[in-house]
Amino acid sequence: MNKYVLKIKCSDAKGLIYKISNVLYQNDLNIEKNSEYVDTQNKKFFFRARLDGAIDTQKIETQLESVMPQDAVITLNKKVKKQIIVLATKESHALGDILLKYDSGELNADILCVVSNHDDLRGLVEKFDIDYHFVPSEGLSREEHEERVLSILGSYKVDYLVLAKYMRILSENFVGKYEQKIINIHHSFLPAFIGANPYKQAYDRGVKIIGATAHFVNNSLDEGPIIAQDVISVNHEQNWKDMQKAGRNVEKTVLSNALDLVFDDKIFVYKNRTIIF
Amino acid sequence: MNKYVLKIKCSDAKGLIYKISNVLYQNDLNIEKNSEYVDTQNKKFFFRARLDGAIDTQKIETQLESVMPQDAVITLNKKVKKQIIVLATKESHALGDILLKYDSGELNADILCVVSNHDDLRGLVEKFDIDYHFVPSEGLSREEHEERVLSILGSYKVDYLVLAKYMRILSENFVGKYEQKIINIHHSFLPAFIGANPYKQAYDRGVKIIGATAHFVNNSLDEGPIIAQDVISVNHEQNWKDMQKAGRNVEKTVLSNALDLVFDDKIFVYKNRTIIF
Amino acid sequence: MNKYVLKIKCSDAKGLIYKISNVLYQNDLNIEKNSEYVDTQNKKFFFRARLDGAIDTQKIETQLESVMPQDAVITLNKKVKKQIIVLATKESHALGDILLKYDSGELNADILCVVSNHDDLRGLVEKFDIDYHFVPSEGLSREEHEERVLSILGSYKVDYLVLAKYMRILSENFVGKYEQKIINIHHSFLPAFIGANPYKQAYDRGVKIIGATAHFVNNSLDEGPIIAQDVISVNHEQNWKDMQKAGRNVEKTVLSNALDLVFDDKIFVYKNRTIIF
Amino acid sequence: MNKYVLKIKCSDAKGLIYKISNVLYQNDLNIEKNSEYVDTQNKKFFFRARLDGAIDTQKIETQLESVMPQDAVITLNKKVKKQIIVLATKESHALGDILLKYDSGELNADILCVVSNHDDLRGLVEKFDIDYHFVPSEGLSREEHEERVLSILGSYKVDYLVLAKYMRILSENFVGKYEQKIINIHHSFLPAFIGANPYKQAYDRGVKIIGATAHFVNNSLDEGPIIAQDVISVNHEQNWKDMQKAGRNVEKTVLSNALDLVFDDKIFVYKNRTIIF
Repeated sequence: MNKYVLKIKCSDAKGLIYKISNVLYQNDLNIEKNSEYVDTQNKKFFFRARLDGAIDTQKIETQLESVMPQDAVITLNKKVKKQIIVLATKESHALGDILLKYDSGELNADILCVVSNHDDLRGLVEKFDIDYHFVPSEGLSREEHEERVLSILGSYKVDYLVLAKYMRILSENFVGKYEQKIINIHHSFLPAFIGANPYKQAYDRGVKIIGATAHFVNNSLDEGPIIAQDVISVNHEQNWKDMQKAGRNVEKTVLSNALDLVFDDKIFVYKNRTIIF
Repeated sequence: MNKYVLKIKCSDAKGLIYKISNVLYQNDLNIEKNSEYVDTQNKKFFFRARLDGAIDTQKIETQLESVMPQDAVITLNKKVKKQIIVLATKESHALGDILLKYDSGELNADILCVVSNHDDLRGLVEKFDIDYHFVPSEGLSREEHEERVLSILGSYKVDYLVLAKYMRILSENFVGKYEQKIINIHHSFLPAFIGANPYKQAYDRGVKIIGATAHFVNNSLDEGPIIAQDVISVNHEQNWKDMQKAGRNVEKTVLSNALDLVFDDKIFVYKNRTIIF
Repeated sequence: MNKYVLKIKCSDAKGLIYKISNVLYQNDLNIEKNSEYVDTQNKKFFFRARLDGAIDTQKIETQLESVMPQDAVITLNKKVKKQIIVLATKESHALGDILLKYDSGELNADILCVVSNHDDLRGLVEKFDIDYHFVPSEGLSREEHEERVLSILGSYKVDYLVLAKYMRILSENFVGKYEQKIINIHHSFLPAFIGANPYKQAYDRGVKIIGATAHFVNNSLDEGPIIAQDVISVNHEQNWKDMQKAGRNVEKTVLSNALDLVFDDKIFVYKNRTIIF
Repeated sequence: MNKYVLKIKCSDAKGLIYKISNVLYQNDLNIEKNSEYVDTQNKKFFFRARLDGAIDTQKIETQLESVMPQDAVITLNKKVKKQIIVLATKESHALGDILLKYDSGELNADILCVVSNHDDLRGLVEKFDIDYHFVPSEGLSREEHEERVLSILGSYKVDYLVLAKYMRILSENFVGKYEQKIINIHHSFLPAFIGANPYKQAYDRGVKIIGATAHFVNNSLDEGPIIAQDVISVNHEQNWKDMQKAGRNVEKTVLSNALDLVFDDKIFVYKNRTIIF
């Protein structure tokens, strides 16, 4: 299979579609699907196409650069499985769902290893013949702990870090090393219930719907660009532990949907919002 | 029809159901449906039953009081249409939906009148032969304006005030006069996006789901007990005005569902949460 | 405003986007948004663009025809309000919702008149200063009744007929006169519960979710191309009349969403399926 | 923990709640939660209570029988983990989800073994140290194959059979041996798309929403009492394989929710409908 994904982000201008499609047409490339969005307020143009054929990516990129606006960010990548590392803590549902999809060939990624600040999930992970790195945090400063985690991550060539209920806040330094490469699942319908124990917060507020949010991680806690969200109804009979249990199915489904989008190169991030084709 | 609703709220204790059902049984009353909930954390008991028969409400209440815990709040009311006043500003969708349901006999309430701080909705309201009170706020302090509104409300015997997109914040004084008798529709999925222009806030945050919340009004803006919520999906193509338009269908449906529950005496409020039977 | 919608449906081939965008670029037209879909199984190409500018539609269409495949169906229309006629029977919720949106300027259409086989809705319709045609069916064959309805419709220049709970089955002859111009709201989640009283059917089957479906009408009852669907949860406490009441909010919202899509020229129909941009 | 569940189904009559609560009160039993429903059309009464205490179940049942209508079906069982056997074929998602929940202690049941007509899932199941019985069907009549499966099932003391995408139709004989003890997940929103390949059917029909249904199995294919349903939105870009992939998350969540209800003794079945407390 010779499948490629072309992504272009630039200032909006007249004729961009024409110019892009002209380059592709002259190179006899078949566009299987293209999507386009113009942020009219900010005059920004976003374009994604799935291409089929034997492609000299360097040549096409150069030709596109010559006709696109100067600020254009152009990427043309062959579709291959992403290389990911999953970080988790003690809860198994989100991690387990990823492992199952990996095992059945449904995950569009290879899991390089799992890193955790606890040893609870080792048994589950090793069932699937995946390396498990236990990095305890006791007695360490956040920086020291992160250094040890970063040292492990650094030994792999990784495309994305997936926080599958990793219950530690990442430092600016950590996030800076993996910009737009860390996906987190937050157990609330953001921006409601930022921070600790959102199910407890949701119960106390008496909401009738709870949810989960998958987002890229940036430097502000729970404020990165949102990729996917979903919700379920709750009622007065459910205490916060019931909500937590019910929420797990939503959490793992939302994370799974977000990962599908990320691994399929369907997302642009712009001004803390995601454009998803 | 001789339909009654019995509601009891009290400290939890062993045998409450037995004691209540004993009183009803001795009086040969038919329970059409009963619901019960115990808040185990706070040891509070909530009970609602729909009764059928010719009932001496005073007698039953007295008998129940004699067997229930001292702190019991007991109400036994014949089912009759609630008397309501709708407050609105300029947007017609929530008000219009209520008017339509009233007109078709689906609303379990009589609309005594509509009060607004603008004159825009007069035409719509008067189509349905309902009195429209325009109370302009220009040149008035909040207190002065509220006094004029309160003066109108005071001339009616009203069970509930419905804020159908009434875009003014009510003072503590106003709310205090109609405790747990004011229902508001807020155009966001509370507690996300409290305050002004939640659709703009939602757009800026880049959420993938928006919603609406119907709640009782208390003294804190948008923080009263939640009655009903619902959501719809949005995507990057929708700017905040698109979201606002899409949200209107949710707003009016959520308000409509909340009003059905309120008018049918199905709600208890306890510690800023609603128990809904 | 000089807004146009260009729609093209044709056999798929390499370079179509290039050819279309070339024509538009040479004519200095600004594409505000374009969408494209290829049905790979049937090798069919669908394209829609929103254009801005002063356009000689005849010229552009001719140029496009000269470069597109022979089977291309090309339409380029100025965006104007659609002219619609609403058909209803006795239930007011779907009709009322359309009237309210029309009244508030939210409906992207003008209502030419309302036609009904009963006189019940006259009062509601006339509140909004819209002509109401009562066409009783008593004593008439289906053909005779339809002839009278068609005679009224024929006196208007109409773009779409909206069946807002019009409870009569249309003949092949009737449908043939308004192909892909009749939108119906069916009170079930099609294809479940085709035919009469779907809420009764849903209750008897014991489903936990009910829904509504907006679709174009073709010759087979409830089998036309689906435009929009939505659902709500139900439980064992709701008998079929409760479901019917709860379903009304879904029905009118689904119909409203479908009408927005139709009136905005966002839909292609192909092989009994809709492609919605 | 001394937790019990009392379930009563009988003809409706005046005073049933009083009579039940009287027995419980005289025995000094604490009702943690009770639920009640009257099917007014069929004059049937359904009652469930969660009791706490040291209970002589035989004595309570006898006392209840003496005061309840003659047709009363009364069960009072201590809350213990259900013993289940999972049947599957080749797809791993529903089975895998059950295994994960079992592994993390979230499943209110013990998995005695997994039975399959294929050997594909052996690796997954044995990761979790659960017996896997491969019962090939090649060369066997349906009866012969079922006999072999039944022989394995018969060697266990099982409460429920869970069909986690078991792709064989069960005979009347098989179902008769496990009445209301077999739970199936069907990959459509029943009653839409009964039978084979519902995703293909859904695609061909052009629906905008797909779903999944968990139900008890009776003798008619896909027509048993529905326990839980859920849906997700789809669009024209998704072919039936995309729908199938998207549907898997719904399937496993719906099955999981249904199992929670079944294992917690929350369901009554009456006239092919479920009453769920």
